[in-house]
Amino acid sequence: MLIARVIGELVSTHKHKSHVGRKALIVQPLDLDGTDRGDAVIALDAVDAGVGDRVLLVTEGFSAMTSVGRPESPIDMAVLGIIDRLDLDPLLGTALPKLK
Amino acid sequence: MLIARVIGELVSTHKHKSHVGRKALIVQPLDLDGTDRGDAVIALDAVDAGVGDRVLLVTEGFSAMTSVGRPESPIDMAVLGIIDRLDLDPLLGTALPKLK
Amino acid sequence: MLIARVIGELVSTHKHKSHVGRKALIVQPLDLDGTDRGDAVIALDAVDAGVGDRVLLVTEGFSAMTSVGRPESPIDMAVLGIIDRLDLDPLLGTALPKLK
Amino acid sequence: MLIARVIGELVSTHKHKSHVGRKALIVQPLDLDGTDRGDAVIALDAVDAGVGDRVLLVTEGFSAMTSVGRPESPIDMAVLGIIDRLDLDPLLGTALPKLK
Amino acid sequence: MLIARVIGELVSTHKHKSHVGRKALIVQPLDLDGTDRGDAVIALDAVDAGVGDRVLLVTEGFSAMTSVGRPESPIDMAVLGIIDRLDLDPLLGTALPKLK
Repeated sequence: MLIARVIGELVSTHKHKSHVGRKALIVQPLDLDGTDRGDAVIALDAVDAGVGDRVLLVTEGFSAMTSVGRPESPIDMAVLGIIDRLDLDPLLGTALPKLK
Repeated sequence: MLIARVIGELVSTHKHKSHVGRKALIVQPLDLDGTDRGDAVIALDAVDAGVGDRVLLVTEGFSAMTSVGRPESPIDMAVLGIIDRLDLDPLLGTALPKLK
Repeated sequence: MLIARVIGELVSTHKHKSHVGRKALIVQPLDLDGTDRGDAVIALDAVDAGVGDRVLLVTEGFSAMTSVGRPESPIDMAVLGIIDRLDLDPLLGTALPKLK
Repeated sequence: MLIARVIGELVSTHKHKSHVGRKALIVQPLDLDGTDRGDAVIALDAVDAGVGDRVLLVTEGFSAMTSVGRPESPIDMAVLGIIDRLDLDPLLGTALPKLK
Repeated sequence: MLIARVIGELVSTHKHKSHVGRKALIVQPLDLDGTDRGDAVIALDAVDAGVGDRVLLVTEGFSAMTSVGRPESPIDMAVLGIIDRLDLDPLLGTALPKLK
């Protein structure tokens, strides 16, 4: 799984029927220090996350389909949790990376 | 999932029987600002998309097979939706990225 | 899926029993203009393709296993079709990329 | 699978119900010589590993879900083993890479 | 699938129960000319391969789990065959790439 920040929402009216009623979030993967990691992707929401939340992102199809409780729904990325904090090995310096 | 633009169609007469009657679209993945993201790929069509449409692309096999309603069909990428718009966090500047 | 060209065959006598009687093709993924895209990979053949053919390549395990009709066979890439032509958006310039 | 080192733990109270009671480890993939390999990722723990352990990391969804014995749990990375040592071909020089 | 060379073995006593009694090989993926392709990975052995063998490597979870005949075993890479030779298109020059 990856850490990511929700930065927006994708709107589509003509789409696969299984996606109806699901929020398609635009999420930006992050490194531990809160900097961008690659480019933004689209993930279905399984925990009612919103813009600005720092979230846990699953990036594999079978797992993502399971997360929203609809095995017949084609999804390859999903938001699974809202992150409270990261506890890093004190030997590594920072206790908690800050988000930009 | 990724955002992509349909740029063409692949024609193949000698192919796996499960692909018969399905459109194989040539799609170019895009970044949020509409610039190309890597190189074009081939995806099966699940929503009757056409050249020029901005679409939602799933890039994992199990999900893609589900999307076209044929579990016995080998597919690893599919077009799942036609995108109306992207609503981005206003703090990020642009409300709606434009396609080139 | 990706476009690729068959450039050879891999020969292995001591192998997983499910692969016996299957051709393991050496295929070179291609960009739309026919130039190499990354390095060659090994894919099982599902459509009796041969050296020189331009083919449709699936690169995910579950899909690839489905394509050869042996669910118990460990495969993560397969050749699914022989490509006749690519019809690209005329606005993009070239109607049909040539293979080198 | 990859070799990795556990460098921290992710804390999330608002998360998918299947993740409740599971440790979400922050792990840094490593090369054979113990240097970092790409960036850290989040993996569920299947062997009670802790900060500082050198571990075996599975990075695919279906496998990761199996590893924690909860098929209904969306996970795409898991820690499967604690590594004792690596026995490398003596022709390659070093018998055992050291961790930093 | 990829071509790889077995360069060592990983030893772990505290590991997932399904991995007990299985060899975890350290394998180096190779290009067609025998040079290294990225970094080494860990794969379970399905054909009793040993250090120095040139092998066929499957790199996807569902396929890898199938290859060792234990559907309940979390594996995402496996060694499926020992390679005898590669027959390349004569137009490409070399008939058989040599290993270093």
